[in-house]
Amino acid sequence: MISGVPKDWSLHPQLERDTAPVGDLPLTRVLLMNDSNYPWLVLVPRQPGLTELTDLEENAQGQLMAEIARTMGALKSAAACDKLNVAALGNAVPQLHVHIIARRKTDAAWPKPVWGVAPPIAYEAAARESLIETLRHGLQISKL
Amino acid sequence: MISGVPKDWSLHPQLERDTAPVGDLPLTRVLLMNDSNYPWLVLVPRQPGLTELTDLEENAQGQLMAEIARTMGALKSAAACDKLNVAALGNAVPQLHVHIIARRKTDAAWPKPVWGVAPPIAYEAAARESLIETLRHGLQISKL
Repeated sequence: MISGVPKDWSLHPQLERDTAPVGDLPLTRVLLMNDSNYPWLVLVPRQPGLTELTDLEENAQGQLMAEIARTMGALKSAAACDKLNVAALGNAVPQLHVHIIARRKTDAAWPKPVWGVAPPIAYEAAARESLIETLRHGLQISKL
Repeated sequence: MISGVPKDWSLHPQLERDTAPVGDLPLTRVLLMNDSNYPWLVLVPRQPGLTELTDLEENAQGQLMAEIARTMGALKSAAACDKLNVAALGNAVPQLHVHIIARRKTDAAWPKPVWGVAPPIAYEAAARESLIETLRHGLQISKL
């Protein structure tokens, strides 16, 4: 299944706390990390019980890659950056999720990976909504 | 092009220094990071001029995902682990490369990402060759 939200799927509470929803692509929910240090999206496949990329069936793995690429394009258009970082780690939150982070040579962690470097700085509500609207437009998705 | 080694492709010198070659999958060269803290592979698509995942054509993006999945399986079989970390960062080395790292709850960086945490510990030659042989068997690839 690569669209819709199965009844037995729910977002991990930690991801729920740390992010704001952008919308749904066919396979994944797109989330904005509430950390204005970096324009930072997270893709979460809406299937229960996934931990590793390889827990997805092969066609869903391909779909995930397509959604990663689509999201990279939209993020790069919304937020000027020097590099995109893409990662599926999951050491802390076991639910399969993919980070897509716009990095700038002037950001708080450059050139290091972002995790654990700078304390998160929450967005102001208006700035967050404006970025989310731009991302929805770039991804061609609507509000949940 | 998703197989063979184009004449104008070469491995970035930093990756050359830090790794030992395992072999070639159709799209990528598989490398073992010379750091025995973590069983750690790196996939490098053998196409010149790539920096972001989105620099690959769409069918090559799908092929990369398939090779990531295949490599995750082989690494997990070769090295017992609690989680696999997969990441394309490229802040330091611009040539597109994907890290696939077997993580254990007892390793030097857990639960943090591995980058910049523990100084690399080079493998002893026999241990490295033995791991590489196991990986070649799991990936069904031969020595370069």
